[in-house]
Amino acid sequence: MLRTHNCGELRLANATEQVTLTGWVQRVRDKGGMVWIDLRDRYGITQLMFDESKSDPAVIAKAREAGREFVLQASGEVIERYAKNDKMPTGEIEIFVSNLTILNPAKIPPFLIEDETDGGDELRMKYRYLDLRRNPVREKLQLRHRMMQEVRRYLDGKEFMEVETPMLIKSTPEGARDFLVPSRVNKGEFYALPQSPQTFKQLLMVSGFDRYFQIVKCFRDEDLRADRQPEFTQIDCEMAFIEQEDILNTFEEMVRHLFKEVRNTEVGGFERMEYADAMKLYGSDKPDIRFGMQFAELNDVAQNKGFKVFDSAELVVGICAEGCASYTRKQLDALTDFVRQPQIGAKGLVWAKYNEDGTFKSAVDKFFTQEDLKAWAEKFGAKPGDLMLILSGETNATRKQMNELRLKLGNDLGLRDPNVFKPLWVLNFPLLEWDEESQRFHAMHHPFTSPKIEDLPMLDTNPGAVRANAYDMVINGVEIGGGSIRIHDREMQQLMFKHLGFTDEEAKEQFGFLMDAFEYGAPPHGGIALGFDRLCSMFGGSESIRDYIAFPKNNSARDVMIDAPSPASNEQLVDLSIKLDVKEEK
Amino acid sequence: MLRTHNCGELRLANATEQVTLTGWVQRVRDKGGMVWIDLRDRYGITQLMFDESKSDPAVIAKAREAGREFVLQASGEVIERYAKNDKMPTGEIEIFVSNLTILNPAKIPPFLIEDETDGGDELRMKYRYLDLRRNPVREKLQLRHRMMQEVRRYLDGKEFMEVETPMLIKSTPEGARDFLVPSRVNKGEFYALPQSPQTFKQLLMVSGFDRYFQIVKCFRDEDLRADRQPEFTQIDCEMAFIEQEDILNTFEEMVRHLFKEVRNTEVGGFERMEYADAMKLYGSDKPDIRFGMQFAELNDVAQNKGFKVFDSAELVVGICAEGCASYTRKQLDALTDFVRQPQIGAKGLVWAKYNEDGTFKSAVDKFFTQEDLKAWAEKFGAKPGDLMLILSGETNATRKQMNELRLKLGNDLGLRDPNVFKPLWVLNFPLLEWDEESQRFHAMHHPFTSPKIEDLPMLDTNPGAVRANAYDMVINGVEIGGGSIRIHDREMQQLMFKHLGFTDEEAKEQFGFLMDAFEYGAPPHGGIALGFDRLCSMFGGSESIRDYIAFPKNNSARDVMIDAPSPASNEQLVDLSIKLDVKEEK
Repeated sequence: MLRTHNCGELRLANATEQVTLTGWVQRVRDKGGMVWIDLRDRYGITQLMFDESKSDPAVIAKAREAGREFVLQASGEVIERYAKNDKMPTGEIEIFVSNLTILNPAKIPPFLIEDETDGGDELRMKYRYLDLRRNPVREKLQLRHRMMQEVRRYLDGKEFMEVETPMLIKSTPEGARDFLVPSRVNKGEFYALPQSPQTFKQLLMVSGFDRYFQIVKCFRDEDLRADRQPEFTQIDCEMAFIEQEDILNTFEEMVRHLFKEVRNTEVGGFERMEYADAMKLYGSDKPDIRFGMQFAELNDVAQNKGFKVFDSAELVVGICAEGCASYTRKQLDALTDFVRQPQIGAKGLVWAKYNEDGTFKSAVDKFFTQEDLKAWAEKFGAKPGDLMLILSGETNATRKQMNELRLKLGNDLGLRDPNVFKPLWVLNFPLLEWDEESQRFHAMHHPFTSPKIEDLPMLDTNPGAVRANAYDMVINGVEIGGGSIRIHDREMQQLMFKHLGFTDEEAKEQFGFLMDAFEYGAPPHGGIALGFDRLCSMFGGSESIRDYIAFPKNNSARDVMIDAPSPASNEQLVDLSIKLDVKEEK
Repeated sequence: MLRTHNCGELRLANATEQVTLTGWVQRVRDKGGMVWIDLRDRYGITQLMFDESKSDPAVIAKAREAGREFVLQASGEVIERYAKNDKMPTGEIEIFVSNLTILNPAKIPPFLIEDETDGGDELRMKYRYLDLRRNPVREKLQLRHRMMQEVRRYLDGKEFMEVETPMLIKSTPEGARDFLVPSRVNKGEFYALPQSPQTFKQLLMVSGFDRYFQIVKCFRDEDLRADRQPEFTQIDCEMAFIEQEDILNTFEEMVRHLFKEVRNTEVGGFERMEYADAMKLYGSDKPDIRFGMQFAELNDVAQNKGFKVFDSAELVVGICAEGCASYTRKQLDALTDFVRQPQIGAKGLVWAKYNEDGTFKSAVDKFFTQEDLKAWAEKFGAKPGDLMLILSGETNATRKQMNELRLKLGNDLGLRDPNVFKPLWVLNFPLLEWDEESQRFHAMHHPFTSPKIEDLPMLDTNPGAVRANAYDMVINGVEIGGGSIRIHDREMQQLMFKHLGFTDEEAKEQFGFLMDAFEYGAPPHGGIALGFDRLCSMFGGSESIRDYIAFPKNNSARDVMIDAPSPASNEQLVDLSIKLDVKEEK
């Protein structure tokens, strides 16, 4: 080793020891007779000291050469500091340097390597290796490391086996778009990168592996939204001979364990909510239950009073903002503007104040009496001082709009504390969802999800109403993961493919191996996949998953640091038997 | 859970307990009045018992329906067995079944699910999910699981950070062929799948991560040899502020720890050998040192005696097979045939017996006197009763041939016990190796490997003689891993690219980000990558890595189970802006 100690470990007890440290120059302070250098590594910062009255002039000269981010090796004696710094663990000592080597000089970095930096997003992405030197960035990846180790330790302890599933698999049209990999050996054919190891983990259950896990890279070639990455990491799990309850308990316990071990946070038992209730009460399948403000439906008290907007609406629904009756006109207008934004799409917002004096004041006073408004208030359980906010229209759209308004108010009112964690299971998702574009039903989770047996008769008559044995883990309004009890019966699987619009031939060609496997003794099984990037960012109290990925891609799926993707050589394309077919954009 | 216990845990102490087990039917024995079923799961086998004189007739009827590999759920009382079986851990008890459910029937599997099966390779690959049910196969993957956990535990304990590096990176022409991934968003451009996370782990060192590891999938689009897979797993590591000695010690200790923890085997300190000595003494850069039989060079005692074959040879080299002077003509001819095989390529083999009576007998007696042969024997340190085997020709080719012969004799003589482990570091590999095809030097390890400073002057005059700070870990003749101390200086890296035939522009385009990074304070660093599939197979005492991969590909890089790769749809190709360009084979 080029060092005897790292920059975070020396204490007063080490005084008089001869040590050698290595690291990066955080700062040089040259006060004429004395020079100090803060030397930084992953473990901390230690102060190096040079004294003109005692040091070898050559050593001091070298210290003065050292600029920010130079890599140094310094040997000397640990001495007690004259001016101690109780803000840093090594603050009681410094090193009186007798020997200094510049291991590598450094150009001035393009942004400050400090907790607060002056570098913009793009610059920091291009020089990601420098951004990773900053404590807050490195700490996020240390958290990720800790999470990975703890997840594995936990699951290993529960007899889960980690099994690596293949990365070069087969493309299947169901679901998101696959990344394809041309095969050179099998000309004209392609592998796909996995969107998840779904079928492989099910096969492992058929193999009797019983409990499987993997922390695994998955790939989706989607148009990127702010918080998506083309490659992402999942904690992927599957269990056999279980019921839904066993999966919920196992992974609830795992996440509680992680909170305790990694974050020293106690989270209680997870709440549970039916999908239908989540939609009705929060307008979302991933409600943030750190705060109440549940929806109240007002059709029976708000319709047929002559207000056409409500009368013509499928749903009149509102929320009650506690203590907000004092909102000014300007504040109310801002809320109206918020819901009218094109990405939210409401036409308007009706407000009604429950004044401190017990009277009501609303935007629609000419249609509604004080008694009418009192009836609204009762629906909300509103108290004097509260503000009721109402939207109306087509049910699903209105619920979505109201969900956005609720979350905004939650933020405005400081009800969404990132240090409070309220995990939730959302249960009994629909099996199928209607896709407008293709004008057919798609699997809401995936085609391997089992339907509730009691709902099966509706599969032909009212497919959208059939519920699945599917569940999502939601924390603070963020979907952390989801899973289902799978189909383990060939006929049921064939029925499902049929309802998803597969011909028998298509089903057989794409998933024949799985259906065959079901005929050779497939046990009941189910599982879950948790978004690992997202779980880490949740633990770290951040909104962005990108911060928790060492080398992320930007919103155009580019790695701007290494400049990938990039053109292939003609020789490579010939080897792969493909040609470019890029059309000029018109 | 559908069970209260697994099939491996019940003992006599559980007698009288009511339990529920689930699993697969291993065997049904129907003796008329009594039926027994061996129920199997990952944890073991438990015997179910049905008795016509006591059981519900409906339950017995169901037991009689159950065929091999049916999935059952059986409830009943644990009872002491009349005829105990001390070969199985549950052999003292059986379950008197009061309730039996067939969870899933099974077709007759295409091969026996037994330790010894009747299925051929191809059939077992197609039904890999059934092959994985067999104990010996599952145990290999359990070993792999245990290895993964233990590697991580160990490295985590040594402050190594696990960091996931990207899978969608940039293609670089150096080294093996990349798998390419067309980008849909960046039309006409391609990602490459990593052959290793080499540049990323070096950047992490520049970032100050100090100690990095990852157990990571890597990809190489090579024509497959028997024991290669297009996707494989590496234990990938890098350390900063270290010297070669630190890497050797760290990973030697890790592998010793794994042997102890996972295999309960003590392996001593690793031997060390110069690359040049390995080639000279064993004709291989991965010598199997479980046995001696080192090469002896005979030029000075075997040339100029009138035997033209030797006289015209660059090298005359032999090995001594202890106690083999009694080999018959037939055995000697078989050895000659062995070295003459086209894949070995020797023209012939000279043998000389050191008879028990102290005389010599050789195939070339007319050229060599007893004294001459005695001189050979002295070179070998041969004793009466030994057999000397000599090859001659061009140095490198002859060494390779002799290496093959030595290994064959090691096998024949039982000197290569798979339960004996002799790890070895091979040190000081050449920096460059001449490539006949491209008529230029290639990096022997990779272009980021640092040369020995003292050899640098030869870079222009005798490039092939420059040694690198590069090392391989070899166990029992198998290369388990390799690594190097890296270049951390821009100018040195540029010099290296120049010598590898890169123009400045090519170097900048492909590796500019790394050379830039070296200018911002890159610490001295180095690392290693161990082949995880191979390490597992070594621990498991097997030759084949495929057995240690859950879902391997065959020698045509196909997954015959899921049938991948497969044709892409036209829509997919249009999305990716590529066209097929498959030429008909003539």
